[in-house]
Amino acid sequence: MSKDKQFVTEITPQGEDFSKWYIDVIKKADLMDYSPVRGCIVFRPEGFELWENIQRELDRRFKETGHRNAYFPLFIPESFLQKEKEHVEGFNPELPWVTEAGGEKLEERLAIRPTSETIIGHMYSKWIQSYRDLPLLINQWANVVRWEKRTLPFLRTSEFLWQEGHTAHENEEEARQETMQMLNIYREFVEDFLAIPVIVGQKTPSEKFAGAVDTYSIEAMMKDGRAVQAGTSHYLGTNFAVAFDIKYLDRGNTLQFAHTTSWGVSTRLIGALIMVHGDDRGLVLPPKISPTQVVMIPIGPPKTREQVIARVDELYAELKKAGVRVKVDDRADVSPGWKFNEYEMRGVPIRMELGPRDMENGQAVLVSRITGEKRVVAQSDIVAEIEKMLEEIHRDMFERAGQFRSDHSNSVETLDEMKSLQEEKRGFTLAGWCGSAACEKQVKEETGATSRNIPFEPLEKKTTCLVCGEKAEHTVVFARAY
Amino acid sequence: MSKDKQFVTEITPQGEDFSKWYIDVIKKADLMDYSPVRGCIVFRPEGFELWENIQRELDRRFKETGHRNAYFPLFIPESFLQKEKEHVEGFNPELPWVTEAGGEKLEERLAIRPTSETIIGHMYSKWIQSYRDLPLLINQWANVVRWEKRTLPFLRTSEFLWQEGHTAHENEEEARQETMQMLNIYREFVEDFLAIPVIVGQKTPSEKFAGAVDTYSIEAMMKDGRAVQAGTSHYLGTNFAVAFDIKYLDRGNTLQFAHTTSWGVSTRLIGALIMVHGDDRGLVLPPKISPTQVVMIPIGPPKTREQVIARVDELYAELKKAGVRVKVDDRADVSPGWKFNEYEMRGVPIRMELGPRDMENGQAVLVSRITGEKRVVAQSDIVAEIEKMLEEIHRDMFERAGQFRSDHSNSVETLDEMKSLQEEKRGFTLAGWCGSAACEKQVKEETGATSRNIPFEPLEKKTTCLVCGEKAEHTVVFARAY
Repeated sequence: MSKDKQFVTEITPQGEDFSKWYIDVIKKADLMDYSPVRGCIVFRPEGFELWENIQRELDRRFKETGHRNAYFPLFIPESFLQKEKEHVEGFNPELPWVTEAGGEKLEERLAIRPTSETIIGHMYSKWIQSYRDLPLLINQWANVVRWEKRTLPFLRTSEFLWQEGHTAHENEEEARQETMQMLNIYREFVEDFLAIPVIVGQKTPSEKFAGAVDTYSIEAMMKDGRAVQAGTSHYLGTNFAVAFDIKYLDRGNTLQFAHTTSWGVSTRLIGALIMVHGDDRGLVLPPKISPTQVVMIPIGPPKTREQVIARVDELYAELKKAGVRVKVDDRADVSPGWKFNEYEMRGVPIRMELGPRDMENGQAVLVSRITGEKRVVAQSDIVAEIEKMLEEIHRDMFERAGQFRSDHSNSVETLDEMKSLQEEKRGFTLAGWCGSAACEKQVKEETGATSRNIPFEPLEKKTTCLVCGEKAEHTVVFARAY
Repeated sequence: MSKDKQFVTEITPQGEDFSKWYIDVIKKADLMDYSPVRGCIVFRPEGFELWENIQRELDRRFKETGHRNAYFPLFIPESFLQKEKEHVEGFNPELPWVTEAGGEKLEERLAIRPTSETIIGHMYSKWIQSYRDLPLLINQWANVVRWEKRTLPFLRTSEFLWQEGHTAHENEEEARQETMQMLNIYREFVEDFLAIPVIVGQKTPSEKFAGAVDTYSIEAMMKDGRAVQAGTSHYLGTNFAVAFDIKYLDRGNTLQFAHTTSWGVSTRLIGALIMVHGDDRGLVLPPKISPTQVVMIPIGPPKTREQVIARVDELYAELKKAGVRVKVDDRADVSPGWKFNEYEMRGVPIRMELGPRDMENGQAVLVSRITGEKRVVAQSDIVAEIEKMLEEIHRDMFERAGQFRSDHSNSVETLDEMKSLQEEKRGFTLAGWCGSAACEKQVKEETGATSRNIPFEPLEKKTTCLVCGEKAEHTVVFARAY
């Protein structure tokens, strides 16, 4: 704690260098630290608690929809990865390999899982025999590794934490329903819990998961206009069922391949929520995920201190009882002003100040992290006032992020038009696309932007491809992405 | 589900072959499956839920005592392991090594963590500067790997799940206090939540953690008389602080090495609770950890079925609301008798039967998994009756396990005496020990039993060493162990 004091004001402004701002903030708020292993970070308690809150909330939603957790091995035998051709091509370049163990060279190399479709597919083929065994709805919370060349804390690290759902169904219809259900759970969660608006849609073939028939994603805009894929859900068809022989006797007693899905979100959500909401003073945490929702700071001269703290403690107990995550900072050796800066930097949604005058008036002062608004409220009404303000802050954050996104979204007819936007904050660009990989590739080469997804609900329908001018098969969101 | 029917009665009796009984039970109750990776198992949902319940309960206790969770990298550079001599010697034979990643040979091999003292020590040296940074109280939930030659599901697997607490303190006294606090939390948890009585004590030097000054453990007795180490807590002194340079400026402005601790329990607890409580009909789950505490089975002829199920649903809602984990099995195509066997095999603590006659009398029948006792209770009192019975079952299970342990514990004066016990169910053997590694080794060679620990509260104090007859420094519990 002592070491932070000197750093509080030393955050690079976003406008000066967004990347540097990001690193400054996550280091200063003690969310992470670099590790001695290339591309791997340490999730410090302040950062890990964000993940714990994400886990708790998502896990509840998974269980409510009938999924159960399981745990599969970290190691994947090389021969397993080979079984699905697209899958191995997609992941091979990023795999770490265990070649020795227990003092001996292994007969077969073991990959550290980059994702678990293969090993889970193998197990499902043992567990699934009949339509009575379906649907099989399993989720796993785990660490995975993808040996990345360029890394960025939370957003792209060699090892990261995630959940991966893997389900098997009797037919395409049910599997597609599951794929959409989980995509929708992700959208709801990211919007309602993290206050991040997202664009829901389908990935283009070149951007889909290696081995999937169709991949769907939710895409969020960071404050530098770049995109983060915040969650994906895949309809895998029978690709993995064929590769791993996941067959069942159907209701008519015929052997059929199961249709499978997979879906995941990861610790990159932490990076996204920082880049969507943070400002030049530091973190801004959405109330629902913030480990501390209210920090109470007693103020005033030493002679009234004891009295003020006693009242603060009473209010603390009341808020705690109501389920508000509240913290008191009554340290005497640190000034209120320093504390104000500190908790602003750490992104606590509400600061409550209570001093001798407030005591006299039966009032307290609430300060919003996001707007800086000061609100004088009756102590007798504290729980209701705090709950109302937390809700307002959530809504406000969500709306601001939505406003920012629309301010940084463009719609173009041609690639030239798109390129002309390049020097400014281009953000998301909506454009028509003929469906050819060549045109998609040209956009990337000339602008650095990739297709994020084909939105289910685009703001407008485009009719011609931005590159070749032919008929547009799809309306696509392009953006530079993390 | 369908596949289980044929297996319900096919459990090898414990008395015939305990190991086979164990495997039969965990497979038939769908707790685990073997994986294609040597020594690694799959935790199926029924088994993983036991771990989730263990996690939730322990995590709460860790947080209540001021610990926070964090996450450190899976990979440990070889040079880190080398820094603490005893540590590397202890773990080297069991390490898997990543030698290639991202298509290239690595300059330095990376071990998959067998435990994280080294990488955490490295990070602590960066985070700890002053006494104000202490104590540092961090826990990690993670997967770890130790390449085992002989494996047994849950009890000894190459990859397993665990928590590892790592703390740093200003001085020996505080670090030792922490070591004992956590040992005590483990004891309380295992006794109060898993209904397993344990012997609390200190490991002998030959059995302590590689790199520790002192290791303490809780030891439980399985139904074949063998021991399972159910949790360990280590005082590491300044060993890791010296190796990783964890220094702080003390209150007198002098640089000091921190004193550190580590402590852990793992998924082997699942194996222990099965082997302590299970019987020839299958699993017996302690009420507090059991995913389902009560299974409700409607009985009687088709004509009253609808009416009975309606009442069952009402009672279900009432129990659910009271926080009881309850499940209804109202399948019409499976007989009550089959269901009775099924849920007994799965270890559900209480079965509730409700039929037309019970409807008339306003009653329900509760059947205890552990004693088979049938209790007719008033429906109007169902919550209180269930809660009382769950408590009784917990107490009963704890007492039975304690009785079994004392029935299978012996006290000897000499090694010959101990060897003469060998052919019977020897269980735990209390004996005096002079403190020499040679005598300890001889016990192991001649009986197969290792020293489990030096109990804090032995049933009696021994005065002479069972091997050499010299003065006993300690009274030790010996046992064959998993």
